[in-house]
Amino acid sequence: MGGDRGPEIVIPGAALAAERHPGFKFLFFGDEARINALLTRHPKLKAVASVRHTDIAIGMDDKPSQALRRGRGKSSMWLAIDAVKTGQAHAAVSAGNTGALMAMARFVLKMVPGIERPAIAAMWPTLRGESVVLDVGATVGADARQLLEFAVMGEAMARSLTGLAKPTVGLLNIGVEELKGNEHVKEAGRLLRELDLPLHYHGFVEGDDIGKGTVDVVVTEGFTGNVALKAAEGTANQVTIFLRSALKSTVLSMIGAFLAQGAFTALKNRLDPRKHNGGVFLGLNGIVVKSHGGTDALGFATAIDMAIEMANNGLVQKIAEDVSKVHALLQPPPTPEVSESTV
Amino acid sequence: MGGDRGPEIVIPGAALAAERHPGFKFLFFGDEARINALLTRHPKLKAVASVRHTDIAIGMDDKPSQALRRGRGKSSMWLAIDAVKTGQAHAAVSAGNTGALMAMARFVLKMVPGIERPAIAAMWPTLRGESVVLDVGATVGADARQLLEFAVMGEAMARSLTGLAKPTVGLLNIGVEELKGNEHVKEAGRLLRELDLPLHYHGFVEGDDIGKGTVDVVVTEGFTGNVALKAAEGTANQVTIFLRSALKSTVLSMIGAFLAQGAFTALKNRLDPRKHNGGVFLGLNGIVVKSHGGTDALGFATAIDMAIEMANNGLVQKIAEDVSKVHALLQPPPTPEVSESTV
Repeated sequence: MGGDRGPEIVIPGAALAAERHPGFKFLFFGDEARINALLTRHPKLKAVASVRHTDIAIGMDDKPSQALRRGRGKSSMWLAIDAVKTGQAHAAVSAGNTGALMAMARFVLKMVPGIERPAIAAMWPTLRGESVVLDVGATVGADARQLLEFAVMGEAMARSLTGLAKPTVGLLNIGVEELKGNEHVKEAGRLLRELDLPLHYHGFVEGDDIGKGTVDVVVTEGFTGNVALKAAEGTANQVTIFLRSALKSTVLSMIGAFLAQGAFTALKNRLDPRKHNGGVFLGLNGIVVKSHGGTDALGFATAIDMAIEMANNGLVQKIAEDVSKVHALLQPPPTPEVSESTV
Repeated sequence: MGGDRGPEIVIPGAALAAERHPGFKFLFFGDEARINALLTRHPKLKAVASVRHTDIAIGMDDKPSQALRRGRGKSSMWLAIDAVKTGQAHAAVSAGNTGALMAMARFVLKMVPGIERPAIAAMWPTLRGESVVLDVGATVGADARQLLEFAVMGEAMARSLTGLAKPTVGLLNIGVEELKGNEHVKEAGRLLRELDLPLHYHGFVEGDDIGKGTVDVVVTEGFTGNVALKAAEGTANQVTIFLRSALKSTVLSMIGAFLAQGAFTALKNRLDPRKHNGGVFLGLNGIVVKSHGGTDALGFATAIDMAIEMANNGLVQKIAEDVSKVHALLQPPPTPEVSESTV
């Protein structure tokens, strides 16, 4: 029921995903009448769909605490997450309110043992393909230990989604020298360098390395990650607007643009945010993917694709195993206080 | 002597700036022989230039502490900053090592009374023109009070450089609601809302608002600001590379691109980083502008233009006055500890 247009996007999106992933079943939670009316237009999806009715939907502006109180046990969002917990579903995908979705997902699914805080990971288009960037907004001010956990989770996600056997991991910083950055980042860098972790740590990377694809996984705390993601989206949009206005400035360039329209379509495809849509909630005992609320069916289908891939690859199990390995190396675990006082 | 190519960029850059600003004089510090040889090619600049010889130049990789020890009292960088302190120059411009330049500038010029920490401000091209973004790397982890000081300094700089009488100021955050963000940002937001400051506070802005030009001044701490700036530069570069490769993909689009080349030139001009080159050091008793080390003469001239504008407009005096007004409103000053405990 979430997102700017609710089932009108979710159902056609699921229909696209169902075509791409034969054999999968879909459970829909929400307004039965609206959902069923839409399903009649997608008979192939209808054949593999079940609908569970509820009148209650979380609003896009509800505060997480409100949403938990009002939606607990009965809202469409809660029921979808609960289906993951009870094993009825392998993953939940929602275009709803991010804060409410995260609060409910933590409440229902609980954190993987040993992981302190969740992260939201995004797929970032790069010159080399796609990189995993986390956290983009779940944990503001993550400390060194939490950044280390994000590195482990992001690496497992990259293996799951990109098929790379040994993705490279970089820590986002404002320079590549060991002395640069804040205490959390320096300490996380030290731990990643010195511990014999089962991942390929590249070192510090800077903001412009994300788009270059210097590493497959970029690790940062939620404030910086969120700002970087939105600044990059804003810049891509800005360049596109500049280009469009430049092409309209003379008749000759309008003719040129007409002839080169295949190239512009290719560029548009390459920058299409719908092809990278989906914020993956990491650190929970279950897969939850947050679709952008303003996307369309194609974008929602991408978020479902990601959920299916990760479920197929046993991502949650991989993360739990990797984290327990890391914790064995970290014995005795450095608490944030200890980390800071040793710097 | 700084930057990738030293005087070979600085002198032609100054020659461009001298053409644009008749009546200004230029003081050059460094290797007299190299500088004089270059000046003979620019007779108009030579007529308004003085050269002060020194053998000592700070290396691009020197640590700030090394640079201070080795360069104190005699390096070209030190002498240029000292000329601002002694009133021989109205501003210093350098393409050298950023950390060394900041350390020396703080040591020689000292902070404006009442300002705790310096900021580096950048001019960010937007859909509406240009915005001031600060801090882009001087003060990692700035607290609420420091963010407030950055707001005041950035606003004064925007008035100085853009000619706006009442520039709008936004605080960079991961959402626009009052509850979003970390404690420093929330507390700074509260202070900016509640104090009757002599500036136009817009509220929180997000990463994509920077490029939209939602506000004229974007305030953030140095880590996030640095990452956002580099992520945006990386994205602009990435889109340009995608565009170039798309235009070469078919013969038809190559013909189209040829016809539309005027539009691509216009786009290139609009995205040209040389037109926005110059990191302004704010909070010091004097104007220091850091040029990108890899820029060319045109880019270096932009950094000089900025320095001249700000000197002409009495920026340092404006900042000192504004900060003392703010401090009067802040009595008794909330220390960072108090700010945090009240949240």
